[in-house]
Amino acid sequence: MTILVLQGPNLNMLGKRKADHYGLVTMDEIHARLEERARALGCELEFLQSNHEGALVDKVHEARDRVEGIIINPGGLTGFGYSLRDAVEDSRLPTVEVHLSNIHAREAFRSQSCFSAIVVGQVAGFKWRGYIAALDMLVDMLREAE
Amino acid sequence: MTILVLQGPNLNMLGKRKADHYGLVTMDEIHARLEERARALGCELEFLQSNHEGALVDKVHEARDRVEGIIINPGGLTGFGYSLRDAVEDSRLPTVEVHLSNIHAREAFRSQSCFSAIVVGQVAGFKWRGYIAALDMLVDMLREAE
Amino acid sequence: MTILVLQGPNLNMLGKRKADHYGLVTMDEIHARLEERARALGCELEFLQSNHEGALVDKVHEARDRVEGIIINPGGLTGFGYSLRDAVEDSRLPTVEVHLSNIHAREAFRSQSCFSAIVVGQVAGFKWRGYIAALDMLVDMLREAE
Amino acid sequence: MTILVLQGPNLNMLGKRKADHYGLVTMDEIHARLEERARALGCELEFLQSNHEGALVDKVHEARDRVEGIIINPGGLTGFGYSLRDAVEDSRLPTVEVHLSNIHAREAFRSQSCFSAIVVGQVAGFKWRGYIAALDMLVDMLREAE
Amino acid sequence: MTILVLQGPNLNMLGKRKADHYGLVTMDEIHARLEERARALGCELEFLQSNHEGALVDKVHEARDRVEGIIINPGGLTGFGYSLRDAVEDSRLPTVEVHLSNIHAREAFRSQSCFSAIVVGQVAGFKWRGYIAALDMLVDMLREAE
Amino acid sequence: MTILVLQGPNLNMLGKRKADHYGLVTMDEIHARLEERARALGCELEFLQSNHEGALVDKVHEARDRVEGIIINPGGLTGFGYSLRDAVEDSRLPTVEVHLSNIHAREAFRSQSCFSAIVVGQVAGFKWRGYIAALDMLVDMLREAE
Amino acid sequence: MTILVLQGPNLNMLGKRKADHYGLVTMDEIHARLEERARALGCELEFLQSNHEGALVDKVHEARDRVEGIIINPGGLTGFGYSLRDAVEDSRLPTVEVHLSNIHAREAFRSQSCFSAIVVGQVAGFKWRGYIAALDMLVDMLREAE
Amino acid sequence: MTILVLQGPNLNMLGKRKADHYGLVTMDEIHARLEERARALGCELEFLQSNHEGALVDKVHEARDRVEGIIINPGGLTGFGYSLRDAVEDSRLPTVEVHLSNIHAREAFRSQSCFSAIVVGQVAGFKWRGYIAALDMLVDMLREAE
Amino acid sequence: MTILVLQGPNLNMLGKRKADHYGLVTMDEIHARLEERARALGCELEFLQSNHEGALVDKVHEARDRVEGIIINPGGLTGFGYSLRDAVEDSRLPTVEVHLSNIHAREAFRSQSCFSAIVVGQVAGFKWRGYIAALDMLVDMLREAE
Amino acid sequence: MTILVLQGPNLNMLGKRKADHYGLVTMDEIHARLEERARALGCELEFLQSNHEGALVDKVHEARDRVEGIIINPGGLTGFGYSLRDAVEDSRLPTVEVHLSNIHAREAFRSQSCFSAIVVGQVAGFKWRGYIAALDMLVDMLREAE
Amino acid sequence: MTILVLQGPNLNMLGKRKADHYGLVTMDEIHARLEERARALGCELEFLQSNHEGALVDKVHEARDRVEGIIINPGGLTGFGYSLRDAVEDSRLPTVEVHLSNIHAREAFRSQSCFSAIVVGQVAGFKWRGYIAALDMLVDMLREAE
Amino acid sequence: MTILVLQGPNLNMLGKRKADHYGLVTMDEIHARLEERARALGCELEFLQSNHEGALVDKVHEARDRVEGIIINPGGLTGFGYSLRDAVEDSRLPTVEVHLSNIHAREAFRSQSCFSAIVVGQVAGFKWRGYIAALDMLVDMLREAE
Repeated sequence: MTILVLQGPNLNMLGKRKADHYGLVTMDEIHARLEERARALGCELEFLQSNHEGALVDKVHEARDRVEGIIINPGGLTGFGYSLRDAVEDSRLPTVEVHLSNIHAREAFRSQSCFSAIVVGQVAGFKWRGYIAALDMLVDMLREAE
Repeated sequence: MTILVLQGPNLNMLGKRKADHYGLVTMDEIHARLEERARALGCELEFLQSNHEGALVDKVHEARDRVEGIIINPGGLTGFGYSLRDAVEDSRLPTVEVHLSNIHAREAFRSQSCFSAIVVGQVAGFKWRGYIAALDMLVDMLREAE
Repeated sequence: MTILVLQGPNLNMLGKRKADHYGLVTMDEIHARLEERARALGCELEFLQSNHEGALVDKVHEARDRVEGIIINPGGLTGFGYSLRDAVEDSRLPTVEVHLSNIHAREAFRSQSCFSAIVVGQVAGFKWRGYIAALDMLVDMLREAE
Repeated sequence: MTILVLQGPNLNMLGKRKADHYGLVTMDEIHARLEERARALGCELEFLQSNHEGALVDKVHEARDRVEGIIINPGGLTGFGYSLRDAVEDSRLPTVEVHLSNIHAREAFRSQSCFSAIVVGQVAGFKWRGYIAALDMLVDMLREAE
Repeated sequence: MTILVLQGPNLNMLGKRKADHYGLVTMDEIHARLEERARALGCELEFLQSNHEGALVDKVHEARDRVEGIIINPGGLTGFGYSLRDAVEDSRLPTVEVHLSNIHAREAFRSQSCFSAIVVGQVAGFKWRGYIAALDMLVDMLREAE
Repeated sequence: MTILVLQGPNLNMLGKRKADHYGLVTMDEIHARLEERARALGCELEFLQSNHEGALVDKVHEARDRVEGIIINPGGLTGFGYSLRDAVEDSRLPTVEVHLSNIHAREAFRSQSCFSAIVVGQVAGFKWRGYIAALDMLVDMLREAE
Repeated sequence: MTILVLQGPNLNMLGKRKADHYGLVTMDEIHARLEERARALGCELEFLQSNHEGALVDKVHEARDRVEGIIINPGGLTGFGYSLRDAVEDSRLPTVEVHLSNIHAREAFRSQSCFSAIVVGQVAGFKWRGYIAALDMLVDMLREAE
Repeated sequence: MTILVLQGPNLNMLGKRKADHYGLVTMDEIHARLEERARALGCELEFLQSNHEGALVDKVHEARDRVEGIIINPGGLTGFGYSLRDAVEDSRLPTVEVHLSNIHAREAFRSQSCFSAIVVGQVAGFKWRGYIAALDMLVDMLREAE
Repeated sequence: MTILVLQGPNLNMLGKRKADHYGLVTMDEIHARLEERARALGCELEFLQSNHEGALVDKVHEARDRVEGIIINPGGLTGFGYSLRDAVEDSRLPTVEVHLSNIHAREAFRSQSCFSAIVVGQVAGFKWRGYIAALDMLVDMLREAE
Repeated sequence: MTILVLQGPNLNMLGKRKADHYGLVTMDEIHARLEERARALGCELEFLQSNHEGALVDKVHEARDRVEGIIINPGGLTGFGYSLRDAVEDSRLPTVEVHLSNIHAREAFRSQSCFSAIVVGQVAGFKWRGYIAALDMLVDMLREAE
Repeated sequence: MTILVLQGPNLNMLGKRKADHYGLVTMDEIHARLEERARALGCELEFLQSNHEGALVDKVHEARDRVEGIIINPGGLTGFGYSLRDAVEDSRLPTVEVHLSNIHAREAFRSQSCFSAIVVGQVAGFKWRGYIAALDMLVDMLREAE
Repeated sequence: MTILVLQGPNLNMLGKRKADHYGLVTMDEIHARLEERARALGCELEFLQSNHEGALVDKVHEARDRVEGIIINPGGLTGFGYSLRDAVEDSRLPTVEVHLSNIHAREAFRSQSCFSAIVVGQVAGFKWRGYIAALDMLVDMLREAE
């Protein structure tokens, strides 16, 4: 079982961004922790971070017949990334949306995610931990569905 | 370390409610699974389900000096339970909001939670699993803060 | 066949409230007239009036496997009584919403009922008569469905 | 005592329209049942169905000094039939608004009736039964007022 | 002359809540100061604090023929406590609304009080002093009306 | 010079409608007074009142090459009579909108006229006098333009 | 009988402003024509133009017991001149609102007049002619009321 | 195969209306071109233009069991012609909406068509060509469905 | 200690304005009662009423280093008097907003005060008494802060 | 004559996306059919599909002096692709907007196209046929303009 | 060449107002720096600061035939100073709007300037420097137009 | 000191775009003029124009530790370029927003800039001059802060 982990614009700067909202852990460190948990769960991960919406869309198209689920933090595309949203929706892959900060306690353009309506679930506000929880729950739901 | 688990109106009917949204697991079963995980994490849990907003408010008042955090599924109080919201906010306890279904993909009165702006984070859409993830992350954050 | 009649907050004061909107008949008198009609129709009634939303929710939970339908006047819970709304919706019981006054000719917070979208139908503006009509039509629809 | 029964645009197609919302009974059958009940109540009925708003307005003008009340299902004029609304309001006749389906659970343009604010009351969601209940209650209210 | 003093949800925690908004004085201390002033004015007071909207509604019903006016701080019920609002409005008792903080400088859900339209007046922002002023003015208005 | 005077739905009932808003003068009386003034001004008038929007549209089409201007009181078509609005706009005839009552002090559906944006001017609130003033000013403007 | 004619901000520049909207006639010329008509009607006029809202308010206060009616073109105060609006409303004098251009076909801040709800009627779009018509109709209404 | 072509209010004036938006071709000329194309496609056409919404509704009722599809340009009924909309929707006939001008680049009351949600597709902005394209595509879709 | 009392547009007409909303007491009488209370409290008052927003702004600028607090009834400037609002806010003086009537039960343009967000508190609905209460509470708060 | 055909994000997946909305034909098949029709019409086509808005913008810049018109299906950029919109608008090339599905019957973010206001016309809901009709009409309009 | 510099309400207090938003430089110092730059550019300046909107309007009227352009900081009139806006617009003088603070990052009533739509351009957020830049650019544009 | 100059989508077409809004000067010419001024001010410039939001984001990430400030004209990204906005905000570099045209006098999607709330200031409407002024003021502010 392979899970695609998508990181949207600016997430490559994690650890260098505002500490209150996003924490001090870097994206690479998050990926390392995810890899570790994936090994424990017996599944594979595939990562892509990009600041180009088109690159993320291309990736979903390319990978969608090869992976079983998606974990996505849309970053700057949260509010209006409709091209990516459509790519994810069309893939029909179970998808979990992760946000480092609690977007519902911030500006309107962050809390109205255009992805929310098409994902299985959303985890927001727990910094790096949210990715681990997303992976745990997604794998569990996929297996239960087997 | 003790965590207060609050279940809002109608959650006592879990397992008997619409299966698509809420799953087939009963509230007691969720509590049993939470207890098991709490033992593994070395912490205590305290539960209250009520269909009376006042009873939930009373509980927060009574327990707030005795517990270290709150996990809350506000149920029917999600949109307009401002009395409970104020009780939780005033307690200054780190709180995690859990929803069984992905409220952001449903009616507006469910997706606009009045609790969102005052919680640490929100987990929505993973059915019973959301409680376990909430407990894991809340305990981890509390300990990290120690 | 048993029908549950739920009266929301303040309806116990009927006959003492503004006569233009609500009429001069008391709640007990309405219940007596309903009982009389129920006997004629060959069905049973069960009543609860409460000013506590929680008590009404508890009642729906407790009675929902025992009754065949609900007649509800949500009173002060009309606009934002989402806990009660969810309890009624989850019961899957055919439900009729009654309002003594024509709520659609009054303040916005009265005319936007959160129950409307989940009931079979609504009768508003006919004072005590609305309950009798609701009972007639609900029983007729239930029997036709048999 | 004579009651004017007005049926707005498309109601002539009843029984041929979407069965879920409107039922299988034709307009003529509804009128027959109304006539029967009117006889039992000792009153007269006068009917008009038209797909022309102007014809309905003309009818209200022509009949308003000859009838004691109106039962109206505005059909396609529910949302924006202000000419008919004004004709009814100016007639000062007690009027009951009937809808076959529960308009409050449907599209916004159906649930915001421009007639609501000027009628005695509204019955919605009970298919053909709503007309009978409307007649019962309207006659009862008119006689009580005598 | 007797005045009913109603304290809504969470006001029992006064003195333990956010000091900036609500001050350091406890609810009991406020009541003591009100009692003292009431003695000076030659009137009686009756108090109820509750976190249950239903209990406050019940109180208004029970007391409304025995008291001459109401001082109410709706607390968490300010925005959507329509059941309590209706109970107060139906009582036809002159009522003064008090808020410890200046609700008009805070979140929208606090500044849009559903009680405002039915009270004689509102005092907001003066912490405990607002109750004293409310009592002074209410008693003065009631006596002037005699 | 000929002016077309169009009277929308319900204006045939003038003098029988609510006196506060519309006055006691009948439509025929208004037309008589207009005729008298037209004679003084040396121009012709052509009248049509109809409760059928289509009939008014037909009239504009039929008359538009024969008349020099329009005086219109859209009555019940004020808010949403877009077919008539388009007919008037397409005629390119200078048009004056008259309302008996001050529509700007009434319900929103009356004060938002869909004709306002395409007319030369609007006269509202002066009962029958508004027609005379409209005729005076329209004729004067047409002659000045000669 | 004396009528107060109030001209709001910028109307002193008439004849120098945009010709399409306001025409080429100066304010003094309009006043001269009004004087002439007033003589014919047998009444007196009193004028004030000011760019200071306060000066217009002062004038209304000073004159309100001495005049029988007001003709007002609020100019730049049309949308938000609430102080002047209150002064006019409190005077209880029959008031006519005049606009040179058809404000309903222009920007929202011009077409939403805060005066509309308190005046007898409004004349808009006829340039200088609107004042004459306003005077005719106001005097006629005042005399009819005698 | 027969297609019903409905032309709403004012379309009889085509060729005499604003040339920028609607072009110079008359309605009869459009119908002639449609007839020619229909012959080429081997199908029949039936036309109705009316300025009376009721007449269009009547036509849909009368023809709906006899034709296979509808081409409609609602003209002045685009925004609020709900009676016609319901007639079309109830007919369950595949329907194409045509607009001569690009309504999406014009006033809101033109671009918000109440027909859009119930038609197969919409062609807007190509003047007379839009009808030909509509016919081509509708016939093709109907045959493909055979 | 000196307190500046500012009275906005139209308040000079008190006692001559609508009695229901504002009472029968004149502005001079209110000032006399305030003076009397100020003497009892051992503080000075300085008054300004003006119908000119600029004059009120000038006053705040001139007095702000000489007084300790402000009592303001903005009158007609309540909704949009942003110049005065800024002057008050920039003064950093503790300010109390007083309204004679309960603005929250009236038109939107009265209940949305642009001053609310910058004042210590608001007293509305108690007619002249509100000023006395405002003075009592303001002086008490200022002294407590000493 | 050369026409540029632009396909926005996700259209490369056609035939693999939701069949109800988009049909079963692939993008390459659509292009083949367009090529065939272009040959019949005697014109050239140039294609670009991209999931990168920037690439589409670059293309418009590069091609705009070489082509005579544009056919665009903005795909995921329909709602908020303002960069592409500006590129198209600045090109001053006659442009036709095509949508496979009837966007006006779907979610708001799909039906509010930011391209609508700048295109010649829009064809929506006819699946692959819409492109052919767009080409026919665009070429015809370009030639008629010659 | 002469430029009129208008300073709206409260700008006379510059240097004494909130330093974060407005800086520490006084209005006189800004004027001195402007004078210096004007000399370098070879043009004249004329200043007016007033807290009275009427005085600013009077100034525009008086000066408009004598100056070539306007620099305006509307201060407290930014949102609703429509009288001043109209005076500026009617003058047809090229006008630059300056704000000391970045109004677009502040409250809505500050960022929605009613002047924006009629000025050449806007400079906001650079404190005193904005005036110098405004003068440079305005003079340059005026000379280029020569 | 180095300043990064970012030019968003379509700005490479300057001089070829609509002259009224954007002027006739090309982007290269603007850059040449900026270079000249930078030399005079003793600072360095670094330029990037791209039609790809991702490329602009990458640039901000790459350069942010090397430059002291940013001048940005977001072009087509003004309204919804949240990825770029976040990149700029996270860089914590003082940033000035420039628009060639006065965006506040144009369509809503242009005047609501998502960058406004995070920049030091905004210059809009002065065509190429705005860049020079932005550079002058930014450098001055940066040096003053030294």
